[in-house]
Amino acid sequence: MMIRADQRQPDQLRPVTFQRGYTRYAEGSVLVSFGDTVVLCNATVEESVPPFMRGEGRGWVTAEYAMLPRATHSRNSREAARGKVGGRTHEIQRLIGRALRAVIDFDALGERTIRLDCDVLQADGGTRTASITGAYVALAEAVNGLLRDGVLTVSPLKDSLAAISVGIVDGQPLLDLNYGEDSKADVDMNIVMTGSGAFVEVQGTAEAEPFTAQQLDAMRALAMKGCAELAGMQRAALEG
Amino acid sequence: MMIRADQRQPDQLRPVTFQRGYTRYAEGSVLVSFGDTVVLCNATVEESVPPFMRGEGRGWVTAEYAMLPRATHSRNSREAARGKVGGRTHEIQRLIGRALRAVIDFDALGERTIRLDCDVLQADGGTRTASITGAYVALAEAVNGLLRDGVLTVSPLKDSLAAISVGIVDGQPLLDLNYGEDSKADVDMNIVMTGSGAFVEVQGTAEAEPFTAQQLDAMRALAMKGCAELAGMQRAALEG
Amino acid sequence: MMIRADQRQPDQLRPVTFQRGYTRYAEGSVLVSFGDTVVLCNATVEESVPPFMRGEGRGWVTAEYAMLPRATHSRNSREAARGKVGGRTHEIQRLIGRALRAVIDFDALGERTIRLDCDVLQADGGTRTASITGAYVALAEAVNGLLRDGVLTVSPLKDSLAAISVGIVDGQPLLDLNYGEDSKADVDMNIVMTGSGAFVEVQGTAEAEPFTAQQLDAMRALAMKGCAELAGMQRAALEG
Amino acid sequence: MMIRADQRQPDQLRPVTFQRGYTRYAEGSVLVSFGDTVVLCNATVEESVPPFMRGEGRGWVTAEYAMLPRATHSRNSREAARGKVGGRTHEIQRLIGRALRAVIDFDALGERTIRLDCDVLQADGGTRTASITGAYVALAEAVNGLLRDGVLTVSPLKDSLAAISVGIVDGQPLLDLNYGEDSKADVDMNIVMTGSGAFVEVQGTAEAEPFTAQQLDAMRALAMKGCAELAGMQRAALEG
Amino acid sequence: MMIRADQRQPDQLRPVTFQRGYTRYAEGSVLVSFGDTVVLCNATVEESVPPFMRGEGRGWVTAEYAMLPRATHSRNSREAARGKVGGRTHEIQRLIGRALRAVIDFDALGERTIRLDCDVLQADGGTRTASITGAYVALAEAVNGLLRDGVLTVSPLKDSLAAISVGIVDGQPLLDLNYGEDSKADVDMNIVMTGSGAFVEVQGTAEAEPFTAQQLDAMRALAMKGCAELAGMQRAALEG
Amino acid sequence: MMIRADQRQPDQLRPVTFQRGYTRYAEGSVLVSFGDTVVLCNATVEESVPPFMRGEGRGWVTAEYAMLPRATHSRNSREAARGKVGGRTHEIQRLIGRALRAVIDFDALGERTIRLDCDVLQADGGTRTASITGAYVALAEAVNGLLRDGVLTVSPLKDSLAAISVGIVDGQPLLDLNYGEDSKADVDMNIVMTGSGAFVEVQGTAEAEPFTAQQLDAMRALAMKGCAELAGMQRAALEG
Repeated sequence: MMIRADQRQPDQLRPVTFQRGYTRYAEGSVLVSFGDTVVLCNATVEESVPPFMRGEGRGWVTAEYAMLPRATHSRNSREAARGKVGGRTHEIQRLIGRALRAVIDFDALGERTIRLDCDVLQADGGTRTASITGAYVALAEAVNGLLRDGVLTVSPLKDSLAAISVGIVDGQPLLDLNYGEDSKADVDMNIVMTGSGAFVEVQGTAEAEPFTAQQLDAMRALAMKGCAELAGMQRAALEG
Repeated sequence: MMIRADQRQPDQLRPVTFQRGYTRYAEGSVLVSFGDTVVLCNATVEESVPPFMRGEGRGWVTAEYAMLPRATHSRNSREAARGKVGGRTHEIQRLIGRALRAVIDFDALGERTIRLDCDVLQADGGTRTASITGAYVALAEAVNGLLRDGVLTVSPLKDSLAAISVGIVDGQPLLDLNYGEDSKADVDMNIVMTGSGAFVEVQGTAEAEPFTAQQLDAMRALAMKGCAELAGMQRAALEG
Repeated sequence: MMIRADQRQPDQLRPVTFQRGYTRYAEGSVLVSFGDTVVLCNATVEESVPPFMRGEGRGWVTAEYAMLPRATHSRNSREAARGKVGGRTHEIQRLIGRALRAVIDFDALGERTIRLDCDVLQADGGTRTASITGAYVALAEAVNGLLRDGVLTVSPLKDSLAAISVGIVDGQPLLDLNYGEDSKADVDMNIVMTGSGAFVEVQGTAEAEPFTAQQLDAMRALAMKGCAELAGMQRAALEG
Repeated sequence: MMIRADQRQPDQLRPVTFQRGYTRYAEGSVLVSFGDTVVLCNATVEESVPPFMRGEGRGWVTAEYAMLPRATHSRNSREAARGKVGGRTHEIQRLIGRALRAVIDFDALGERTIRLDCDVLQADGGTRTASITGAYVALAEAVNGLLRDGVLTVSPLKDSLAAISVGIVDGQPLLDLNYGEDSKADVDMNIVMTGSGAFVEVQGTAEAEPFTAQQLDAMRALAMKGCAELAGMQRAALEG
Repeated sequence: MMIRADQRQPDQLRPVTFQRGYTRYAEGSVLVSFGDTVVLCNATVEESVPPFMRGEGRGWVTAEYAMLPRATHSRNSREAARGKVGGRTHEIQRLIGRALRAVIDFDALGERTIRLDCDVLQADGGTRTASITGAYVALAEAVNGLLRDGVLTVSPLKDSLAAISVGIVDGQPLLDLNYGEDSKADVDMNIVMTGSGAFVEVQGTAEAEPFTAQQLDAMRALAMKGCAELAGMQRAALEG
Repeated sequence: MMIRADQRQPDQLRPVTFQRGYTRYAEGSVLVSFGDTVVLCNATVEESVPPFMRGEGRGWVTAEYAMLPRATHSRNSREAARGKVGGRTHEIQRLIGRALRAVIDFDALGERTIRLDCDVLQADGGTRTASITGAYVALAEAVNGLLRDGVLTVSPLKDSLAAISVGIVDGQPLLDLNYGEDSKADVDMNIVMTGSGAFVEVQGTAEAEPFTAQQLDAMRALAMKGCAELAGMQRAALEG
């Protein structure tokens, strides 16, 4: 069996940490790390919803994602300086928002928006899945604040949410790819699951070689194991 | 068993047509329709590659996607007028290009770019999968032209490529959702496959309800049937 | 006398066709062709007017114009990708809207907007005049729908509207220039006329050589003949 | 016969002045006024041409046009602040450049660009025709400098160029409309002519009522008279 | 002691002129020149305030700044053409607005905005300080109009405002640097003062060499002398 | 004497920390905090210079600045989403770059660029001065790396650089204003100094009340004390 550069087993996550209350002002603020991937996830509660939803008594959850210019080995120019949000960023922030909305009861949230900002401070692969996993904790922090303050009496959280990447490298299915593994993977897949084990998003891409149904099943099994472990760590972080 | 509004069986495609040579000037030009979804796919051959690839003797394939403002029931404003390409468009055109690149041998293509423009004239659901399926035929037309003209002696096409949407509506897995079905689906999935039956992209999203591994398997089976049928129609269209 | 590449007489139009109801959702939808120039003209009825006109009970008509990237011999990049609408496009869509407004009674239209989208699928010269000529038919289709549905009881159309290009090539005044003729013309002129024979726009440009009053008169005469023929075809298409 | 608000005859120009050398640094600099319309026209000589023309030994002339925000009765926001050049500006600056190019011999100019900046300091109608008329003088100043410095030995100016607006107000054809007249005109026409009396551009628009061939002839006659007078004043200004 | 290229003493201003009523339509319009630096300052009175200030009965003053493309020795491209306002422009227009607001009583102004447009026609150093000095006169003209028309009964002007540049060139502190001096200065400082001699802005930058407290004091003394002289000229201009 | 909300003396800095090596990939990476203001300063070394400097053997230093959306009490929208860099950001990043360049010997640096990214994670006043102070340490880290690797043999750092804000609140000059103090200050001043005690930038603004020469002197004295203390802490951090 293949030995990973960082000595992990094929089905082993990198060390994962959640640092709650990382900044002072956000209603929820979590610094999440998956190995050397570090993302600051801040939740903002706004007492309004987008124009097309006004007056219906239902809430909204949305997300934005960005990387600091020097989160990576070589520097990327800022999207603000280029004057537009790039395609990859659009794709990722749409994914994060859509995934979080799957575990929210918008009637219970009431006519307010929770906005998640995921800013990658350091990137070593898996930034979108780390963002989702951290953003859920920041979202839960913000919801807990609303419950504590009596703004809400029932939690709008229907379930917890975590995400992980899986892939096939040199024919071997691997869990939680770092950048070095990701850049040589034949297949790259991101899976988002609820705490109770259902699928919210499955996105698999043949980077180099089309893949078989058997490979798809093997990656799915790894992801289910990884997401279950992440759900446990999220619970622990929120109770801590 | 549920009866679909257009009388189709759950595992039945809409009528699919490919009209080759639809415009005069493009190196490949196909008007593809899946029921009332109509997409014009034009292939352009350019004797250059993006700057970062120059001098390596390898080719490139890329795609752009747009909808005409009145392709849909109500009018959408133009992205040019808004001054930027939207997130959904970015996501779709990245998908089309990435999928097509999975069946191309870039060394065999040589230092040239084939650019696929997918413009939706009428939209009734499944525009991204129709775009991929039609773009493959336009790409093959363009490649055949290069072979016919002696620019290439060996085809860079490693396999054919088709895509289809599947979903779960009222608990029932369905193949090839139209707009009405798509807008009430619990799960929406797009699958891209090679003609030889391997997976290139799998993108499933829980729009309303997270889904189980069993549901994922059922949708996968429908998609495999649909893509196999599409591959046959593509072959017929290219031989015609 | 000069023989045109496509065997036409100097005062002869290319074959002109109007395909009504080309797409399903627009209130008016016409695929117009002048030889190899093909434009899809869609009319959208909106029950509102621009902010500066609200509350006055008067309507508005406006137009947008675009070319698909591969409508032409070589590909043009998309204006959405470049992040702005170009000068030529601005100039053309302002012309189309202004010309159509000359035949509309805005009081009779009432406080609603009709928006014409002219998308060029294939370009062989004269795309702006084909757009105006086709857009009038789509506009009339949309107005007829409003009359049929009882939204309007009196037609706001004061007259019909058609446009044609004329020019001077090798000293010879010609009607309805195709791309090959246009690119070597000394003078290029676009004329928009009502069905009753009055002028709405006259735009003549010396591309290579300044022109005389006599040449201006000769081009005007050709245009009057061409517009009269187009008005007849429009009538036939709308009765068909 | 109608009496104009400023006591002019129907065929009378407003007072026209050319102030040469208005700024110090430009190779040609002319402040032109037509009554209360005041435009600063600066010519810049650049020893290069656009990329698509390099190495052919031929020159280029181009123009840009803008209005200061408070050139008009009420303030217009800056195009820089809005982040894009508007449609009207595009249309006008394309017209100015195209018209000037009609009187230039690009082989004689050699591989250099002359760039005309027309900035409207005060606007009382006819800013585009004043811009063309003033820009010609600035262009001639710049060309004279190149001749004086021995950079050129033969003038690339084939003819002089002037422009004027004409229109129909209350049924009366008028020359050189001011803003008050322009805003109630049924027809508005801009005509650009060479010093030797040939037409370079004819742009007529029915603002309120379509017009007849007779009205077109009457406006043309007024414009020919006005342009001839302007050509004389330009000659005088350049000799002064 | 160093002799300046234009024979000025180190503590001597360039010739300064204010031409009031330079354009007809603006509520205040002043062409200000400091030697060869010429700026057109127009004041516009608007009967509204920005959204965040509505309903509070208080006014607002803001400014925009731009250079004509050929105000300088070599041409600069237009910010509108580049699609964005540059960093230097942002910095200068924020400075002008902020400085003017320091001498306005917003309660006395009432719920209206005065907007100052400073457009540099010719630039020979010190355009930002000339803009502030001229904009104050245009602002006072506009305020005087409001008083004359009875819109205001008490002047909202708390003091007058002038600005000047100072610097250190070859070790010598100099007042009112022209472009040639500015481009070789070790230190460049802009100081904005009220007519009664208090400081509103102090902005000093070591372009080449950090500076001492003594040098700062010497520059401050020159600026105080220059601003006092400018305040006298402004008074004279407004009385004239 | 006034008591500050956080019990500091008028001439006392907030607690200042420098965390070196905060991220892994940047050539210099420092997390700097001034009380609750936290800025991540990353230095990137690039082996090239801007086009206008090529071939001269001299280096360049530049900076970019941004705030995370939820660095502040209420959320600010992203500049990338708005499609442009705002005026305040432009002003600040120009200041940071200009200040750092004052302590660099560009000949000694050689033809390479050091780019400083200052991203504010949390903002409680003084973000621009904290950015400069932290960026200097990141810059020194990057330079030390170049010396250690033998790329440079002589340090291009001519001096160290620190910055601090001072202001006048309720008539009392204060050092290092936090957000609460800054928002009610009459005068706000930012001063940048070298380690050897010379001035690099002095930027003072009367937010509410113009200020006297005496007040300017008092603020200057506070800033000199603060910058001297910061220079000592920087030295300690770089030796640590």
